[in-house]
Formats: sequence, structure tokens, C-alpha cells
Amino acid sequence: MHILRLNADMGESFGAWTMGMDSEVMAHVDLANVACGFHASDPDVMRETVRLAGCHGVTVGAHPAYPDLMGFGRRSMACSPAEIENLVLYQVGALAGMCRAEGQSLGYVKPHGALYNDMMRDHDILAAVMRAVAAFDASLPLMVMATRDNSAEWGLARQHGVTLWREAFADRAYDGQGRLVSRREPGAVHHEREVIVDQARRIARGEPLIANDGSDLVLQADTLCVHGDNAESIAAIAAIREALAEEGRATGRSTNQGGQP
Amino acid sequence: MHILRLNADMGESFGAWTMGMDSEVMAHVDLANVACGFHASDPDVMRETVRLAGCHGVTVGAHPAYPDLMGFGRRSMACSPAEIENLVLYQVGALAGMCRAEGQSLGYVKPHGALYNDMMRDHDILAAVMRAVAAFDASLPLMVMATRDNSAEWGLARQHGVTLWREAFADRAYDGQGRLVSRREPGAVHHEREVIVDQARRIARGEPLIANDGSDLVLQADTLCVHGDNAESIAAIAAIREALAEEGRATGRSTNQGGQP
Amino acid sequence: MHILRLNADMGESFGAWTMGMDSEVMAHVDLANVACGFHASDPDVMRETVRLAGCHGVTVGAHPAYPDLMGFGRRSMACSPAEIENLVLYQVGALAGMCRAEGQSLGYVKPHGALYNDMMRDHDILAAVMRAVAAFDASLPLMVMATRDNSAEWGLARQHGVTLWREAFADRAYDGQGRLVSRREPGAVHHEREVIVDQARRIARGEPLIANDGSDLVLQADTLCVHGDNAESIAAIAAIREALAEEGRATGRSTNQGGQP
Amino acid sequence: MHILRLNADMGESFGAWTMGMDSEVMAHVDLANVACGFHASDPDVMRETVRLAGCHGVTVGAHPAYPDLMGFGRRSMACSPAEIENLVLYQVGALAGMCRAEGQSLGYVKPHGALYNDMMRDHDILAAVMRAVAAFDASLPLMVMATRDNSAEWGLARQHGVTLWREAFADRAYDGQGRLVSRREPGAVHHEREVIVDQARRIARGEPLIANDGSDLVLQADTLCVHGDNAESIAAIAAIREALAEEGRATGRSTNQGGQP
Repeated sequence: MHILRLNADMGESFGAWTMGMDSEVMAHVDLANVACGFHASDPDVMRETVRLAGCHGVTVGAHPAYPDLMGFGRRSMACSPAEIENLVLYQVGALAGMCRAEGQSLGYVKPHGALYNDMMRDHDILAAVMRAVAAFDASLPLMVMATRDNSAEWGLARQHGVTLWREAFADRAYDGQGRLVSRREPGAVHHEREVIVDQARRIARGEPLIANDGSDLVLQADTLCVHGDNAESIAAIAAIREALAEEGRATGRSTNQGGQP
Repeated sequence: MHILRLNADMGESFGAWTMGMDSEVMAHVDLANVACGFHASDPDVMRETVRLAGCHGVTVGAHPAYPDLMGFGRRSMACSPAEIENLVLYQVGALAGMCRAEGQSLGYVKPHGALYNDMMRDHDILAAVMRAVAAFDASLPLMVMATRDNSAEWGLARQHGVTLWREAFADRAYDGQGRLVSRREPGAVHHEREVIVDQARRIARGEPLIANDGSDLVLQADTLCVHGDNAESIAAIAAIREALAEEGRATGRSTNQGGQP
Repeated sequence: MHILRLNADMGESFGAWTMGMDSEVMAHVDLANVACGFHASDPDVMRETVRLAGCHGVTVGAHPAYPDLMGFGRRSMACSPAEIENLVLYQVGALAGMCRAEGQSLGYVKPHGALYNDMMRDHDILAAVMRAVAAFDASLPLMVMATRDNSAEWGLARQHGVTLWREAFADRAYDGQGRLVSRREPGAVHHEREVIVDQARRIARGEPLIANDGSDLVLQADTLCVHGDNAESIAAIAAIREALAEEGRATGRSTNQGGQP
Repeated sequence: MHILRLNADMGESFGAWTMGMDSEVMAHVDLANVACGFHASDPDVMRETVRLAGCHGVTVGAHPAYPDLMGFGRRSMACSPAEIENLVLYQVGALAGMCRAEGQSLGYVKPHGALYNDMMRDHDILAAVMRAVAAFDASLPLMVMATRDNSAEWGLARQHGVTLWREAFADRAYDGQGRLVSRREPGAVHHEREVIVDQARRIARGEPLIANDGSDLVLQADTLCVHGDNAESIAAIAAIREALAEEGRATGRSTNQGGQP
């Protein structure tokens, strides 16, 4: 029986600025994508977030990004593959040190924002990220976007000796290739709780979604990305979790100790 | 027979800016204090420096600093002990990740610039640094300044379960307490090669120096800090190394694999 | 009849992070201390804040700080006076450019956080700030803390050809010298609306406060610093403004065009 | 008689890192493109560079860039036009403040590195830069690359009410459209002094160059970009200047006070 883990971005505060409701969200997810100081977070926030994840038995993942605090890592930067490899490695190492100090282990790597998007459309960048992961610890899964066909990503992953975790979204519309519909287009984001929960169930069961070109789309996913910025969205996470539990596809929190999904 | 290792600051380039002559210096030292991105260095420079150290069998140490690129970590910042603990941990982790990617092990920690000076005069700061080292890996020695009496530092180190490496300077004058004479005072820096090599020999043998108040000063040191910014200073490092070898107190380069000094 | 202007820190958001309720506060104050990118703010936030101030007829002041985004400019940094002069000048120029683009004029300079505290206790730093203001535009008033006796600050100001605006606090207790009682001590911050408004009235009238050593303290102030982080504190600002208006010591908003206080 | 001014990048040091030979180069050029802190420079370097330009009667231009110190502004960043407008404005204002403090006037604006290249290929970005210049001071010329046909840039400039200064290169090969041949291609950079000086003469006279597709290329240029990183390249600048003087197309240094080219 395939388990679908919930992952959420965490540790996005910076210095005097607070972002997110990490304490509330942490209670509902399995995987915490922790910012590493390049687009958000700082050493204090990182340590505190790792500690909080530990209290909840949540697995910590590194969420490395382009070096762009002002742009929150959302702006593509024309870094070379070698630069990307090294900046991922730097950030992964920094967060791994925080985990080590808290008696935890880093569990996976998920690039953030523009770097995530760039690696999905440019395999030179994806390969650079994989080299960083492989050099640091090849046993760390790399999270990528689940699409209609992830065979190219799997091919590259095998070449680099790394594992992939594919993530899907319950609250976003997909196009025929299994890419997210751009937020600039109407209908890109689902807002009704029922629609979101239904999409989560379908992904968990391996049932097709209807892409925006009308085609059936089956996404093979290991994890579902969720967001918790306010009470409403946190309630949505809880509802998704409950639905997955009914399907027998949620992690039991007590066994949530960072193994394979 | 007590060995005196040579340590030097390395990896101080940043982006398009080059600093230091790392390739030349690396051939003559035992320990490379590698900047971690807060006062100097960047992910590319760090990785390249770790690789270079590996080629020469030189042990890599983390050289964490206050977050002040513009001031090169030379300006004290009123960070709290908790902030210092976490910023040291972050930097140590980042460099350890680079070492891991290059199949090497991080060998020790030496705070940089103002942070180094601040920890020597304020034991709350020293304790914060020690907590970071102990949390990351208590087997990593922390480098501190050798003074007339390091018993307070040793006491704190025992409390935190960490080891100290005491460093001395061959090219600096000392005051009666075994502190460096400020560079603003005349005679603070030795410039004649003979004087420098003689001071290195005395430190290696455990013989007294003459402090600037005329008193005898015995420094118990594990390592000697050297600087290589130009051909002249690199020649001085080579001369020191040769003198230590004559005394039987230099590391053999072939056995230079990062053990205890 | 002496007018007491209200000043508040503004433009403290940064990139994706929001801080403060600038739109709400702007309606109640005379002077906006706008962060300049070193401790908070970015070019987009600065421009937007200047525009917002313009809509409300609020005078824009530069709020320069130490270069420490992570610490929000609250940590002292051992910058030299020359460094301080230049970093103030840089930030003042950047904000003045934003004002110029919006058809406004920069109205004054108020250093932020640790830089503000440091200049009040160290006249070498105060002189450096004054040199920056004088070099940029000697007609810009520099805001300083009103204390029991500001004659030293006035002396230095005359020497540099700059004007001072003295600011007082309605919600803070003072010691016998007219310094703010540290927040770490009990009773440092007034929380009752009545006490705050009463202190504002006394300052406006030139009547004595009772310092925490029991002595009478008369503060000669040109402006009152207020904070608006939530509905409660914004209501307090409105109450202070109303009280000052009753005293005939508030600016009329319609004439609030940036002249001398 | 058309004058061809020499411009060079200046003020590219940062903190403890030195770059360039500004003192030497300043003696030979008319226009100093001064970095503004986003890709290089800091408040101390900026002030010192402005002062140095003043001593030599060299006009100071703002050299704004993407916020990327680590990448020296050479990496494109997907900033929105509004973000670009504001970050140019911020940097121009900061440098203008330095000029004002030194009794000088800012003379022009030349975007740096990736921002310069991006504005030449994307007119949304060019328009954003022009809006920043126009909002700050429409009398400041904006420097753009001279190509075979700059009519599109001129059209946009007229629309924004700004003036253009077109720059050409003496040491670079051009393609048929009048774009620089990429450095990755063979023959992209001229190394022989004679070839460089000859190209400078042709540009000054309005005579055609031979583009790399064999076509004749006439560049209408107001200024020539030169680089001075070492004694060899500084001698080349001096040779170019001498050649232009023979043609009667160099500025007399004594009249070099920042008017129109």
C-alpha cells in the first residue's frame, strides 16, 4: 500500500521577520522543507525549525535556493551548473549541521522556488543538483515534480546514484503534460476544500485527474505539497490528512521517523 | 616530542575577488583555516579550497565569523551568545558538507577576526562557540590563542567536552599576560626573518619569549599562525617550517593526515 | 506655540516579508522614518513607502542603520567613524533618490536602532553621522534623543552646521539623566493609554516628568516617537494626536508639508 | 567635430578586496562607471572613487546592477521591470549622494553586466531603466551599446524623455548586426595594440569596421569602453587616447567637465 506523505515549506522567517505558521503546520505534515539561509531563514530560525520538527517526529529536508533573499528565491538566476552544485551543497551542509546538533538526520533535499522550476525544465541544472546530493549523501532522496512522465528524471537520477521523491499538488490544476498550470491563468489554483481533498484522494489512489486540456492525467507521487499560511489553509491540510488516513495512505504520526515514503 | 603545526587563513576570495596565494601557501602549512561565507569565501571558493587542501594533505578547519562581508569579519557585532552559537554551527556545517563532498573530514574550528578576539576576552562568547562545536562534533578541536595562562579556557573546554588547540604567533610581540601587542603600538609586528624564525623556535622548544614588559613568557602552543600574502611572507613560512623540522617539531608532510597535534 | 510632531518607523518590510501597518499608521503621523535597505526595506518597499507618505502629506526621513539585515540593525557593529559617515551617506542618498523620483523632498535623518543608541553614547559616532548629513544637505535636521541636557549634542551640531530635532517617548520611563530606562527593567514601558497620553501632554507643555529616580525631568522635544504594530497601538497614536491637538500642539494635517517643527 | 569619450568601470573593490587599478586608469579616461554596491563597491569605495574622479576631472556615472555580489552582477536575474526600475533608482540615488557630498554632479547612468546585456535584448527592461533615469533626472544620459541600428533605443528614449550615449568597443569583434561577438567564439577579443587603436580610429571617424560576417559596419558612438586591469591594458588606453587626440576627437582633459559628448 503506497503512502503519500505531506510536505510543507518551513523555516521561512528571517531575522526580525516572521513568515508562516510553522508550529501549527508542523502538527499535520510528515516532511518539513527547511529554508537554508539563501532565500529565507537564518541560523537561529533553522535551528529552531529543526528542533520543532524533531518534537513532532517530522523529517527535515533541505530547501536550498538561489542566493536571493530580496527576491525570496523566486527569481531565476543564470548560475552555471557548477555554481548551482556548490550552492546546493553549501546549504545542504549547513542544514545538516543543524540537524546533527539536534540529534536528527537530514532526510531529503527539495530545491526551492525558481531553482526547483529551473531544474525541472533544464536537465543540466537538475544534474548539477543531483551531483550535489550524490556528493553529500547519495542516500538522501531528491524531491522533484511528478509529471505525466518522469522517466527522464529517473534516468538522470540512476546515472547519479540518487533516489527521487515525486511530489504532486492537491490544490493546483495540471496541464496535459502534467505540469502545473501557471498561476496567471484562470482556474490554476483550486480554492474549494472538496475539490482539493478529492484531488488528494485521486493522487493517493493512482486515479487520473482531468488535465486542463481534458485529458486523463495519472501522477505517480510519493508526497503531496501543502501550504499553511492561515487557519483556513491549515484546516485544509488536516482535511487532506484525514482523507489520506481513510484511504490508508497517510503516515501514522507515531511511525513517522524518516524512512522511505 | 611536541609537534608545532602551521596554520594559515585560506579560501578568502569571494566571487570575482581574489585574495591570498592559497596554492603557494598550501604547500607549506599543516592546517587550512577555511572561510565559510560570512566574512569571505563562497560555495565555489570553499569547495576549491577544500580540494586544494586535500591535494596537499592539509587538514581543513572551519573559520567561522560574524556575518559581515563588507567588514571582512573584523568588526565586533553585538550578537547574543545564542546567535553566535548558531552562526558558528551554520558555518561549520556548510564547510563540513564541502569536506564530505570531497571525501575529507573537517579537522577543527578556528573563529575568525573579531569573533576570535571577542571569544578570548568574553567567556560567554567562548562558551557559545564551544556549545556549537560540541553540538556538531565534540571531537573537533577548537583553536584558541595561547596566552600566559590558558587555564580558564581549558576549564570551560572541559565543561563543554571539547579539546583546545592553542595557537601562537612567530611574527608578533606579546605583552606580559601573553596577549598580542596591538598593531597600533610600535614593535607589535616583527619584520626581520631571523627574529621571526627565532621566536618560532622558542615557542616550539617551550623556551621563554621576552614580553614587552620585559618579563619572560612561556607559551604552550600546538600550532603557529602564519600568513602568506606575497613571495616574501611565503618564504618566511618555508623558513619557519625548516627551523621546526631541524628541531624535530614539524609535521612530516607525508604523515600530515589530520590527527592530534 | 511649540508643535510636537509624531514620528514612526516605516518601510520595514523586506522582500517577501511584511512588517508594520504602514498604511494605517501613516494617517496619524507627521514624520515617516523610512528604512533604507541596510537593516530593513528594499528598493520596492522604499519607493512604495515614499509614495504612501506623499499621499498623506507626511514628511519622509532617512532611517539609516548598520549593515545588518539579519539583526535588523539592532546589534552594535564596531564600524569606524569614517565607515559610519559613508554608510549613512549611502543610505540617505538612496532614499533621497526615491523621494526625488516621487516629486518629494527628503525631510530629515534619524539613525536606526543600534546606530542611534551608539551615536547618543559616543560623540565620535555622532560627529560621523553629522558629517554625513552636512555633506549631503546641511539643511536636513538630524533627529536625536531628547535628554535632560542636550547641550553637548547641540554644540557638536553647531560645529557641523546641522540642526537637531529632539525626540521624546510617551510610552517609556526615563532615568534621572533623561535616558530611557532599559526594557530589561520593570516599569520601562508604559502600557496604560492614560499614562501614555499624560506623558505626551507633559512633554508637549514642557512640564516635568518624574524620572525613575524620583527627580523632575523636563524634556525639550520637537517630536514624539510612536509605534503602530497593531490596532491597539494605532489607537494609542490617535489618542496622543488628539491630546496634542487639544493642547494646540499637533500639526494640522493639511499644513503638514515638511517645514521646521 | 564629434568627440569620442573614454569610459571605464571603476570602484569595483569591495570591503577588504581590491579590484582594478583605478588610480592609474583615472588619468586616462573621461567617464568613470562607478559600481553602486549591488555587484561591487561599498560606501567607502564609492566615496573614494568619486573623490578620485573629481581630482582628475573625470565625470562620474552610476553603474547599477542586479543585486548579486557573489556573481559580480554577471548573472541575469528574472527581476520584474518594476523591480529593475526601483533597484536602478536606489543605486543611482546612493551614488548621487556620494557625488553631492564631494561637490560633484552625477553625470550619466550605465547599467552593468547582465543588466546591461538584458536591457539591450529586452525593451521592457530597457524601458524600466529609462523610467528610473527619467524619474531621477531626465537630463542624465543613459549609456547603451552602439549597434548597426539604434533607432529602437532612440525611439524608446524619446518616449521617456531621456538622452542616450552610445558606446562602442575598440577591442572586440562585432557581428553583422553590430552586436559583440561572444567571448566564447574565436577572434572575439582583439589583443594586438595596433588592431585596437585602428578600430578606435575608425569608430571615431565614423568609418566602417568589418563585421565577422564580412559586412561593413558603421557604429555611431559617443564613447568607447576601455579596461585597465594591468600595465599592458593601461598602456593600450593611453595609446587609444593619443590616437583620438591626433584625430581631434579626444576630450582635452582641462575641459573635461561633464557636458554632452
